[in-house]
Parts: sequence; structure tokens; C-alpha cells
Amino acid sequence: MTRIVALAGGVGAAKLLRGLTRLVHKDELVIIANTGDDTEIHGLHVSPDLDTIMYTLAGIIDEAKGWGIANDTFNCLEMLDKLKQETWFKLGDKDFATHITRTQMLKRGMTLSETTIQLCRTLKISAKLIPMSNDPVRTKIISHNLCLDFQEYFVKRGTKDEVTSIIFEGAQKAKPAPNVLKALKEAERVVICPSNPLLSISPILSIPAIWNELKNSRAYVVGVSPIVGGKALKGPADRIMSSMGHEASAYGVAKFYEGFLDHFIIDNADTFDKERIEKLGVKVTVTDTIMRSLEESIHLAKVILDAR
Amino acid sequence: MTRIVALAGGVGAAKLLRGLTRLVHKDELVIIANTGDDTEIHGLHVSPDLDTIMYTLAGIIDEAKGWGIANDTFNCLEMLDKLKQETWFKLGDKDFATHITRTQMLKRGMTLSETTIQLCRTLKISAKLIPMSNDPVRTKIISHNLCLDFQEYFVKRGTKDEVTSIIFEGAQKAKPAPNVLKALKEAERVVICPSNPLLSISPILSIPAIWNELKNSRAYVVGVSPIVGGKALKGPADRIMSSMGHEASAYGVAKFYEGFLDHFIIDNADTFDKERIEKLGVKVTVTDTIMRSLEESIHLAKVILDAR
Repeated sequence: MTRIVALAGGVGAAKLLRGLTRLVHKDELVIIANTGDDTEIHGLHVSPDLDTIMYTLAGIIDEAKGWGIANDTFNCLEMLDKLKQETWFKLGDKDFATHITRTQMLKRGMTLSETTIQLCRTLKISAKLIPMSNDPVRTKIISHNLCLDFQEYFVKRGTKDEVTSIIFEGAQKAKPAPNVLKALKEAERVVICPSNPLLSISPILSIPAIWNELKNSRAYVVGVSPIVGGKALKGPADRIMSSMGHEASAYGVAKFYEGFLDHFIIDNADTFDKERIEKLGVKVTVTDTIMRSLEESIHLAKVILDAR
Repeated sequence: MTRIVALAGGVGAAKLLRGLTRLVHKDELVIIANTGDDTEIHGLHVSPDLDTIMYTLAGIIDEAKGWGIANDTFNCLEMLDKLKQETWFKLGDKDFATHITRTQMLKRGMTLSETTIQLCRTLKISAKLIPMSNDPVRTKIISHNLCLDFQEYFVKRGTKDEVTSIIFEGAQKAKPAPNVLKALKEAERVVICPSNPLLSISPILSIPAIWNELKNSRAYVVGVSPIVGGKALKGPADRIMSSMGHEASAYGVAKFYEGFLDHFIIDNADTFDKERIEKLGVKVTVTDTIMRSLEESIHLAKVILDAR
């Protein structure tokens, strides 16, 4: 019986989930991951957020980079470069194995969620990880008169473009993957991981059936701010919040989640935001939210589970 | 204008071609390669003979193994193993790049010969390398009541099965790749490389239009024995010759090519076979045919070009 559902993006979410999975029984936790960042590269299907979560939970993540597999090499990429292929998307040799395997499973008719179950099983991950949808949803970044694929914006152009709009292509028609709605219905608590609100959490919420379920849910919704002291811990969340007209602060994120957020966990550095957030009708817990170690991940997970 | 056409399999052919390309102008030589060994593995199209020739001519072949790329690593394969994929087909990380690139080109609608031109260009190979056909021809090995894919027989089961029959699936319907027949028509000299007669040369000859062209050709056909002193230099040629009812000797190979072979190059170790082969109406040159270095490859190529 699902007790807790986590909505998750990439690195920040993965770090939190590493703590959460230590505290919550595997049958009681369901992780719903963003697939808006998914892309096809070199003819292979790549699901960056699913992979980051899988690699982190399997204990094989490259901790320094936050993505990819530890101690990986880049010989395939080097040879692809010799063969005049585009190589701005940095895939390691071991990482390629995941994409090759997943692509072949998809080609054989498996759904993305089925491939995820299979990959998690072989990597001995017991947590239930589900892509938000088996239908393609693709995040597109609009920068003035430019429309960029997400990875083009994020990796190829290094988030240098000002984001003026974001589109989740396919979201309106996308059905939640099997067990997503069931998990949300059963959940006592929904955790919004410290992921980019606009790029990682929004794509999940942009699927109408998921948004409806969450909006009407009686679950206690606890979020963690990905912005600490006005800065994103990783990635361009702060700049995007600003350019999209939101305040780049813990308060700005809480305001963005207003309407379905019950409780927000903010960092000690943002104590001054507590009162403003509470005025939105959202409870606040102030703690150390930066996860530099497994212990700190477990600490934050405990704060989330204790929030009420 | 094509002066010389070489019919080629894998390692032995590649070594000879390395010499031949030093002596013959690139516009005068066309290499027609066997694709009967081609396979799809991990969803990727692999053309072992094309690759061995390409890597050898590009100077990046793993000389010790005779296949694959020098100084390659096997991290992708190791990870595929963790993901419970079959890994008996040993693909290196750099090697994967070739298969990934070719597969994507094919997916985009390019023919196998177009992908080969493209790959050769990026690897700075000036020789004209053409797959025998753009249509799938697949070598199947029959061992008593067992039907094995070529790579299953060759790699997975290590050539341990007795070959009782060989099938070239698709050959009857296969059209020669563009320029194959034109090259054969123009050629003054056809070189049968020291490749496995039954597994590497026969698939090429099994394409009706190629066989017709060769049979009626006025070109001087010069072969090199892949069998030296009754043994194959590499691979199971000797055992297969025997199990298929041929003599496992230079003479046996000459007899197999009887009818279209004009001149046969045999090793010093097989001097005693000279007279028997000449009785087939085939001229014979005896020399050192083992290619341990570029110099020895050039020597053998020279003997082939001088044969008359």
C-alpha cells in the first residue's frame, strides 16, 4: 500500500530519494519521475532523470558530476567524434549500455515503465520508480524567437539562453504511466523533491490526469525548496524563475506551488522567508537542506516525513 | 577505371589489402566485402568484415586480435552484462561507436554501401570498399539438426560445431551493391583474398549476378590460399573444408575455385601441392604467404599483381 509518493526530477531529487528509501519501506514509496528531458541521441532513447535516480539508488552514480556512472570512460564518445557525430551530449561507455538496453527493450514493444522496472531489477533497486508517462512528453524551451529541445538548451548551449516560455509537448494528450494515479490516490503524503519547479516538476503536473489527482488529493503535500539563499544548488532554476516572472527564492517556489502545497521545507539560509510563505497558508520547516552526504539525505528525508 | 577487384572476407583479406592499397592507385582498386557475417546485436547493425577491413586500412585495428580497435576498452559491455544482456559478442567501447553510427545512418534510410562510403571518408580511407550487397544475406551454419546464425556458430559457440551445410539466406534474391558489377566488368584482375572459401568468399559468389559476372569475366583471377600446410592461419577453414567434403589443403581450395581461378598463390610450405593444382589448369606461384608485417603484406600483394 503506497503511503508516500515522491515527484522527482534529477540530481536533487535523487539525493533526497537516497535518504527517503532508507526510511520508508519499499512497498510504501512510489517515485514518479519527470521524462520531459528525455531525448533520442545517436538513435538511442535517453531518460536523464530516470537514469540519475536509478544510478543514485544503485550506488553507482558519479557523485562529483551528479549524473552518469562512477569511473566511466568516454571512448565510445571519442570515436563518435572521429566519425563526425555530434558529441555535446556526454555519454560515458557504461552509460551507453543503459541507453542501448532500454532502446532495445522499447523496440521490442516494452513501455518505458516496463523498461524501468526491468532496469531497476537488474540494478538491484527495490524502490518503485515510475516514469510520469509512457507517452512522449518533451520539454521545449522558448527563448524569444528560438524554440530549443530541452537538452539543446540544457547541455548543448549550456543554459545560456534566457527562458521566456516553456512548452511540454505532448503533455495534454499524455496518460499517466500505470500505477501513477493509483499511487497518488493511496498516498498519505506527496513529496515534491528539491527539483527545478519549472523544468522538472511542472512537466509532471502538466499531465492533466496527474494534476487533477494531485489537486483533489487529501494527501499532505510536502515540498523542499531547490533554491537556497536565492540561488539554485545546481542548474539554472534561479535564472529561469526570474526570467519567467517568479521570484527566485524559497518564497517564489512556495508561491509557485501555492494551491496544492501544505508544507514547505526551506534552508536555514532562508529563515527570513518563513513568514511570507506561512502567509500563503503553507506550513514551514526550516532546516539544513543541502545534502552533501547520505547522512544529510537521511536527515532531510526525516524532516519531510515528520512534517505536519 | 577499375583495374583490380578484390573479393574479401575479414582478417586475412584486410592484411592483404593493406599491402595492395600501397601498390595500386585508389581509383584502380575496388574491394567487394562479404556481408554474410553481418548481424544485429543489442539493436545495432554490425558488419564484421567491413569493419575489420576499415579498421585495418585506417591503421586503427587491434593487431593482436585481428578485429576491433586498438587500445579499446570494454566498459559498455561490462555494464551490459550487469544489465543481464548477452555479451558473448565482444564489442569494445570505440567499436560500439561504429555500430551506433552505422545503425543510425541505416535508420535514416541510407544503404549499407552509402554508410560504408561515409564511414570510410570519416576514417580517411581512400580505398573503394563496397559491401557485396545492400540486401540482407545471412550466413547460416547447419550442424546436423542444428541451424545456427553465423555469429552464434563463430563466436558464441566458438566454431565447435561440425559444419554439415552452409546456407546464404537471402542470397538468391540479393542484388549486388551499386558499382559491384561495373567494377567486375572493368577489372583486368580479380583477387580472391586469403579468406575462408566457404564462409567468406562463397557468400559473395552466392549472389547470382556476381557469380554470372565473374564466371563470364575475361579478368585474370588470382587467388591466395588461406590454408598453409593443411591448416587455416586463423579460424576454422581447415575443419570446415574437411567436414564439407573438401580436402583441407591449398589444393582443396584451388579445386574449390576450379572453373574461374586462373592463378593460385600458395605458401612455400605447400610446394608439394603445386603440380596437383597445375593439373587443374591453374597456374601456381609459390611464395611466403604469411603476413606478419606491412612489408610482408606488400610482398604478397606484389606477387599477386605480377602473377601471369
